[in-house]
Amino acid sequence: DGQTKIQTKETYLSEVVTLDLETAKQLKGTDILKYGTPDRGSDARLYYNHVLCYDQAKKIPVWVAELITKSDLTGPANRQHSKFKMDPTLDEFFSSHNKDFLGSGWSRGHMAPAGNNKFSQQAMDETFYLTNIVPQDISNNAGFWNKLEIYVRDLTNRFSEVRVISGPLTLPTVKEGSKQFVNYEVIGNNSVTVPTHLFKVVTAENPQQPDSPIAVGAFIVPNQPIQGSAQLTQYQVKLEDLEKTAGVYFLPRLPPSKRVDLCSVDSCQLISQEALELYFIGRKLENAKTVERVDSVWKDLERRHLIPDDYLIDLYKKKRESLSTEP
Amino acid sequence: DGQTKIQTKETYLSEVVTLDLETAKQLKGTDILKYGTPDRGSDARLYYNHVLCYDQAKKIPVWVAELITKSDLTGPANRQHSKFKMDPTLDEFFSSHNKDFLGSGWSRGHMAPAGNNKFSQQAMDETFYLTNIVPQDISNNAGFWNKLEIYVRDLTNRFSEVRVISGPLTLPTVKEGSKQFVNYEVIGNNSVTVPTHLFKVVTAENPQQPDSPIAVGAFIVPNQPIQGSAQLTQYQVKLEDLEKTAGVYFLPRLPPSKRVDLCSVDSCQLISQEALELYFIGRKLENAKTVERVDSVWKDLERRHLIPDDYLIDLYKKKRESLSTEP
Ligand SMILES: [Mg+2]
Ligand SMILES: [Mg+2]
Repeated sequence: DGQTKIQTKETYLSEVVTLDLETAKQLKGTDILKYGTPDRGSDARLYYNHVLCYDQAKKIPVWVAELITKSDLTGPANRQHSKFKMDPTLDEFFSSHNKDFLGSGWSRGHMAPAGNNKFSQQAMDETFYLTNIVPQDISNNAGFWNKLEIYVRDLTNRFSEVRVISGPLTLPTVKEGSKQFVNYEVIGNNSVTVPTHLFKVVTAENPQQPDSPIAVGAFIVPNQPIQGSAQLTQYQVKLEDLEKTAGVYFLPRLPPSKRVDLCSVDSCQLISQEALELYFIGRKLENAKTVERVDSVWKDLERRHLIPDDYLIDLYKKKRESLSTEP
Repeated sequence: DGQTKIQTKETYLSEVVTLDLETAKQLKGTDILKYGTPDRGSDARLYYNHVLCYDQAKKIPVWVAELITKSDLTGPANRQHSKFKMDPTLDEFFSSHNKDFLGSGWSRGHMAPAGNNKFSQQAMDETFYLTNIVPQDISNNAGFWNKLEIYVRDLTNRFSEVRVISGPLTLPTVKEGSKQFVNYEVIGNNSVTVPTHLFKVVTAENPQQPDSPIAVGAFIVPNQPIQGSAQLTQYQVKLEDLEKTAGVYFLPRLPPSKRVDLCSVDSCQLISQEALELYFIGRKLENAKTVERVDSVWKDLERRHLIPDDYLIDLYKKKRESLSTEP
């Protein structure tokens, strides 16, 4: 009948008070939580160019969301100017510290990549906040995961809006008979969780074509070295399988009927190992501070018989020229 | 200067628009999260006599909060009438199922205990929702944890308001050299987390004495069999150590200056093993449905040389009488 006998301070005061169930539960809840609602800090945190939810227990993010457009990918920002540091907006009590990572054998892996924020030094700097960082296998970070990030950036050549949600997972990986176990390392004084896997949920669209479906791809990648020959599609999963294990609906306002499989409308092809090498050479050229460094990077390229593309040749020439003419 | 160059749809439309930083981040965030904010379901969930936060990834609660007063502990509710079942207010996609527990070797352990809800069958029934349940070691559930629950109830004899927050933890328990690992089992098709530990945060007060400090105790108990002789104080921890590892501030609105150590103002003495045996006999008597059952329970008590208190003797007599006179 919508009325209830929940004991609340109001019913202690006057036994004739009757309340509808929801109001009564609210009052009781307020009394139970007299000293505040325990808060695991699940609010979305806003930055210049990403939004994230932080896991105060694991000391790593739950998810980090970005919108990438072509214009974000060029500009003056330089990762050499950025420093890994504690997020000034996070309570230090629940933060990881740089010291937790150092000597652990694990690299500080970005979820929102620095390279998606070339348009703004401030946006790039914020990706170095430790709220955006997980302990990541070094080879995975520089290799397969890096290629995935490059593929996501490359989508902006074919889709004007690319959204990506990245994050860590701790999945069952150990079997003993019919039993299953989750097992993961924690590092440093703050017991920072080393995830067993990393995920990305990618949506890509050209919103000027309003009736076309949104391309969606979900990927789960083990946090370990991955063969250079591995294909991205090997790591594709059903979005709902990821959602169930992560405990999160990632695209709550995108009805399944409006989704199309990313890998059926785009290649889901990662760049080759050789192209990745050229990418690293490009980064080294960008960061070179002397003509000698430029020349030695270029000699390394030639020694390894890598074939530079026009962009790289142009970068080499410009960099060499600008460093030569500096006083 | 409070202005910013974050790219938002507004700045695409008109390059002269300038926004304060927070507004710009809000707009950008809305654009990033075009398909909704990924939600790990951290809202507090209200029930008749408890409030909880559910972990959609682990399929167990994060914390369960209660307010216990003396009058809650007597009444007509009977756990024989309650059934473990899925919480009808939780999305089934993220729920554990009874089937996950069956045959796993783990019991379904209440966080808000059924026994704190004798005043209302409805409140008791809600403690059997699987949102309030964790896979718990059977002996721990019936033994040490049960004694802790009884101690918390007993506090209502000395404090008119007792609040308790209970929940599971997955703590590092495995060391290899200098490395530390978290290792825990997951059970069933829904990979329900078996916590390594359980915690309770207890506050106790007599609010009619408004200036007296609030007694606070925090306890972490391994999810395994615990010796009958173990003392509660062996498992007491600093609240802030629990908060750091759980990633939760449990009493955000209770300033440390108003807290006093529970175990310094109350005994923190658990009942003896013998008293626990008598407690179980009381429960069996309450649930007995025939005179034969009452007599066999009582014979068991005598055979084991347990000394019943007045309450138990009275319960035995009344139960025997009522069952004898029934048609
Ligand atoms: Mg990286
Ligand atoms: Mg129990």
